Amino acid sequence: MRVLGIDPRLTRCGLGVVDGSVGRPLRMVAVDVVRTAPDAPLGERLAAVHAGIDRWIEEHAPDVVALERVFSQHNVKTVMGTAQASGIALLVAARRGLPVALHTPSEVKAAVTGSGRADKAQVGAMVARLLRLTEVPRPADSADALALAICHIWRGGATAKIQAALAAQAAGKGRA
Amino acid sequence: MRVLGIDPRLTRCGLGVVDGSVGRPLRMVAVDVVRTAPDAPLGERLAAVHAGIDRWIEEHAPDVVALERVFSQHNVKTVMGTAQASGIALLVAARRGLPVALHTPSEVKAAVTGSGRADKAQVGAMVARLLRLTEVPRPADSADALALAICHIWRGGATAKIQAALAAQAAGKGRA
Repeated sequence: MRVLGIDPRLTRCGLGVVDGSVGRPLRMVAVDVVRTAPDAPLGERLAAVHAGIDRWIEEHAPDVVALERVFSQHNVKTVMGTAQASGIALLVAARRGLPVALHTPSEVKAAVTGSGRADKAQVGAMVARLLRLTEVPRPADSADALALAICHIWRGGATAKIQAALAAQAAGKGRA
Repeated sequence: MRVLGIDPRLTRCGLGVVDGSVGRPLRMVAVDVVRTAPDAPLGERLAAVHAGIDRWIEEHAPDVVALERVFSQHNVKTVMGTAQASGIALLVAARRGLPVALHTPSEVKAAVTGSGRADKAQVGAMVARLLRLTEVPRPADSADALALAICHIWRGGATAKIQAALAAQAAGKGRA
């Protein structure tokens, strides 16, 4: 299974591609961030995020996208940009016909470190260890994107099947 | 000046096109809503909003898009969908090279009714009167989209010029 993890931030949108399956070693395929200037017009920033994600899907042909689930209750200051960047990720995936799985930050932390309250440094260190990298990926947003992909591979099959079934059911209802 | 007003909602995204200029009669060109099923997958809903807005820009060739400015502080329950729908509107406009002007709900209400605290019925009634329609456009989201377009025409030239200058300056900085 090849997973594209996306940490949806407007200033630095983390992208990480990981190959793997439950119980097998993980392999990092690529990692990067799409950077946009905070003082650029918002539409241009969203278009850059759109182009970056679309190019990565084209280039790395993931089977699924793992995206951070954004909560409106948290980080009121940054939530708008995060919501919009995650909307762009959902749009690109839908138009490419790719399934998207959402994982909360604590699910991701728990998956890679064993604790839902781990800090960024701990997540970065575990990502580097699990992927056998000599250094922690920088910036943190890129490590977070890889952590999302790893979380998805390990939470794996069951969750994906349930979500696909629910989505199919929901789509069926929506069209009825 | 031809303005596409967009009321960015996920379930009913209001679209309204109005021709006019300061001091001249207004003319409604078109009004509609893009509806998406609340139980459809989020990516599909965003793709439908994207397609709807893109089709309208293609069909009606507006000079500018007037979009509601979304605040994260308000309506925590619906703000995520609204933020994502507005992000899609910003993306489509940017990719089409169209300027976007943001107006707050109270600016829109004040522009069409004289009061920033007017209710939906009052806004709908004034939209119908100003556009010489025999009925108030339904649903309210479509009347809100027309109100946004009217607001933009009346706040008009000055605001647009300031925003364009700021955007150009910001883009220059961003690229520097």
